[in-house]
Amino acid sequence: MDHAPDNSLVLKRMGIDTHQEPIVYMQADCHVCRSEGFSAQSRVRVTTDRASIIATLNVVRDGFLELVEAGLSEAAWRLLDAAPGQQATFSHPRTVESLGSVRAKIFGHAFHESELLVILQDMAAGRYADIDLSAFLTACAAGGMSLDEIVWLTRGMVQVGERLTWNHALVADKHCVGGLPGNRTTPIVVSIVAAAGVCIPKTSSRAITSPAGTADAMETLAPVDLDLVSMRRVVEREGGCVVWGGAIRLSPVDDVLIRVERALDLDSDAQLVASVLSKKVAAGSTHVVIDIPVGPTAKVRTADAGGALARLLERVGREVGLIVRPIVTDGSQPVGRGIGPALEARDVVAVTRGDRDAPGDLRDRAVMLAGEILELAGACATGEGNASARAILEDGRAWRKLQAICEAQGGMRTPPASSQRFEMTASGNGVIAGIDSRRLARAAKLAGAPADVAAGIDLHVRLGTRVDAGQPLFTLHAESPGELAYAREYLTEHPDIIVVRAAP
Amino acid sequence: MDHAPDNSLVLKRMGIDTHQEPIVYMQADCHVCRSEGFSAQSRVRVTTDRASIIATLNVVRDGFLELVEAGLSEAAWRLLDAAPGQQATFSHPRTVESLGSVRAKIFGHAFHESELLVILQDMAAGRYADIDLSAFLTACAAGGMSLDEIVWLTRGMVQVGERLTWNHALVADKHCVGGLPGNRTTPIVVSIVAAAGVCIPKTSSRAITSPAGTADAMETLAPVDLDLVSMRRVVEREGGCVVWGGAIRLSPVDDVLIRVERALDLDSDAQLVASVLSKKVAAGSTHVVIDIPVGPTAKVRTADAGGALARLLERVGREVGLIVRPIVTDGSQPVGRGIGPALEARDVVAVTRGDRDAPGDLRDRAVMLAGEILELAGACATGEGNASARAILEDGRAWRKLQAICEAQGGMRTPPASSQRFEMTASGNGVIAGIDSRRLARAAKLAGAPADVAAGIDLHVRLGTRVDAGQPLFTLHAESPGELAYAREYLTEHPDIIVVRAAP
Repeated sequence: MDHAPDNSLVLKRMGIDTHQEPIVYMQADCHVCRSEGFSAQSRVRVTTDRASIIATLNVVRDGFLELVEAGLSEAAWRLLDAAPGQQATFSHPRTVESLGSVRAKIFGHAFHESELLVILQDMAAGRYADIDLSAFLTACAAGGMSLDEIVWLTRGMVQVGERLTWNHALVADKHCVGGLPGNRTTPIVVSIVAAAGVCIPKTSSRAITSPAGTADAMETLAPVDLDLVSMRRVVEREGGCVVWGGAIRLSPVDDVLIRVERALDLDSDAQLVASVLSKKVAAGSTHVVIDIPVGPTAKVRTADAGGALARLLERVGREVGLIVRPIVTDGSQPVGRGIGPALEARDVVAVTRGDRDAPGDLRDRAVMLAGEILELAGACATGEGNASARAILEDGRAWRKLQAICEAQGGMRTPPASSQRFEMTASGNGVIAGIDSRRLARAAKLAGAPADVAAGIDLHVRLGTRVDAGQPLFTLHAESPGELAYAREYLTEHPDIIVVRAAP
Repeated sequence: MDHAPDNSLVLKRMGIDTHQEPIVYMQADCHVCRSEGFSAQSRVRVTTDRASIIATLNVVRDGFLELVEAGLSEAAWRLLDAAPGQQATFSHPRTVESLGSVRAKIFGHAFHESELLVILQDMAAGRYADIDLSAFLTACAAGGMSLDEIVWLTRGMVQVGERLTWNHALVADKHCVGGLPGNRTTPIVVSIVAAAGVCIPKTSSRAITSPAGTADAMETLAPVDLDLVSMRRVVEREGGCVVWGGAIRLSPVDDVLIRVERALDLDSDAQLVASVLSKKVAAGSTHVVIDIPVGPTAKVRTADAGGALARLLERVGREVGLIVRPIVTDGSQPVGRGIGPALEARDVVAVTRGDRDAPGDLRDRAVMLAGEILELAGACATGEGNASARAILEDGRAWRKLQAICEAQGGMRTPPASSQRFEMTASGNGVIAGIDSRRLARAAKLAGAPADVAAGIDLHVRLGTRVDAGQPLFTLHAESPGELAYAREYLTEHPDIIVVRAAP
């Protein structure tokens, strides 16, 4: 449909940050609103000579804009790559036909392969409003996804983004399905595996519903927002890296979906498998070890659920050309001591450097996972992975490799410390009989993690530890008094996050 | 949790219309953002000495606000009933615990009665973001709702709003489940029933996914945004009214949900039954006739589905204390001629006034429904409802009642005419063999209905009409050239909306 050339306005940067949602601001009585019939919350197509996006309209009464101007939020400005004074034309977006497939899914129809691809293309192009993304995720979680649907979702997510290739026949990778606070093995595993000469170009995500993702924690040690050229340089030089995947548009729809999943606090197996494996395929990986922690308050709660997820990862992996080795691990309590980006990074450094007081459970898990990769990659004989990985950690090769990777990524940093702290102590003598990982994670988030990188929880006890009344159980860290108070309020409401059973 | 008194800012009305979503604007480096750790899209509690709401934060860089000011969108300003220069305090909203029940529903758990009530209370208080409302609606549609859940949803929706009482033991009501364009019987039925001396205080809704709701059409004849006191005055004087239910906060959550349902283009039986019956209970109705049009392109497509919906309405009605008589009717084509608020109101006037060229199908449906109500209410003998209603229409009592009701509601108006028109003609000779009600409705919406009240479609043929090439099939009406063009583009893409079968 052709629009008269006068359907145009001059773009103005409003300086309003609406996070990822693009907003356009216009006066109600400007000629575009009048001729197109736009009103508040209309979805509007904005087109410049360089780009075209769909944005949501906020109608401005007066004062902010001239009648010939249209304002853009920061996200809209960025997506359009706009320049001050630039002209744009405004029109009705075409009907997003693929929303019909989402509605069919809601009412119990399975997706076809081509439907899923169009949905993902529409999402990547910003044609789905937040409520549409929410409906898609909810429909997939509620209706369930068949193996075919998950495979198509995974392939589609790869197809709408960049795809990396490497000059290695074998490219290793690891992943943890998460849900276990403090389980920050990745930088340690990458250091060991790369030191052993196996290529491991690791792209990681930021937190979805947890207080820290690997990218969040790693960012307190080195830059992680590397573009593809920079990432290649690091991998060529050091054989490995730990960077944020989002900066190189691997499976970009995953990032769109993750933002809404995070706000909804919603995870499902299908989205999880497609999210994880699409990133792996797009990153050019061939051999992938996946850590699935199982525990009563971990993301995966039972051995059965862990086994089912493991089988799903293996099967979908095979369909999309990956060799996947899922490993169900103990998830009965947090790993290491820190929960939150900087606190977890501190533990990573302690383990990799071989500090005497480094958390042993984090070290043992990292060594086990690195050993599995070394065996899967044929870098050592079957059964010798663990010993091989441990030797690389103990003789300092892993620590030298971590430092070298951080330097190559832009320079090693020291994780920042928090300004606000509160120590939670035991109310009586006894033995630690339970640690609620979910509520600890929730408290760490209320304290500001992952956005406030120094915020979180430093855990001083483990299951079975004997404590006396008044002995510190954990320390709450925050960067603002309001968030410290908010997290403390939550702890007061949930006094049984750490269960101390009276000693006999 | 107590907040220091300095967690306050001065409120400023931004004059930005974001429809129903409350937005608060602050500078990133104001003392509230810094101490509370707020960033773009944070959910923020705003509290004045009069009210408290949850709003979404947009961060403003500079220019718009002083550091001691917080801006409010129009919706936020309205919800807070704010005054310029007023102080407000800002804090983290408490965790919305009821979202846990929504997540449980997504994963297949049924709601308990108390969970649904808390969810509805949270929605009424504005604690659900749009993506949360979308997840709730999608989860209910996808997982299905048991009879118990629908009853609890209905009761809960009544409980969180106003509830009317009348000085009549018998209060009649009617409803159409919609989906059939042009089926605007309500003002005619109300006029007949009220003229027969049966109390019928009708509250109607605006369009959900259709080009016009009864309130939208009636508004072109008289004001419908009446408060409770005004509505009572009309009903006491005339025995009936046709007003918008939203203005008197009957089942206010229904309006919240309808806004998102409309954006998602999503209807489900459970939401439909709860929506309809909660409004009826809240309106103080006792005897309700419900029109369920069934046709291949109506909302209800098969007689089986119509029967299932009828049984559900009856059963849930009984549980919530209503006598419900559902009537499955022919929905194979639009009713009357007009589709869109003003065009439908024109047909209503023609039928009620007894114009010779008034659409006979609209008249017959209205008479049948009014007759059912008269029988249900005991205002005539069983089997005589139809004749009784027809007499009231034919002798002019219904027309005098409609005029009196319009005057009592604030003055009768003439529906406006459109400024932009396009005539769709038959491409060949033949007989009308199919009319796609859904796509006609879609075209009417693309032309601007219901927001542009004069927009829509005027249908000149019915199933079985003989047409010659070049003869007008329907006229498209719009209020802006952009929307006319947009609707025409849709018609071009879907040339088979009206099927002309070549005459033998």
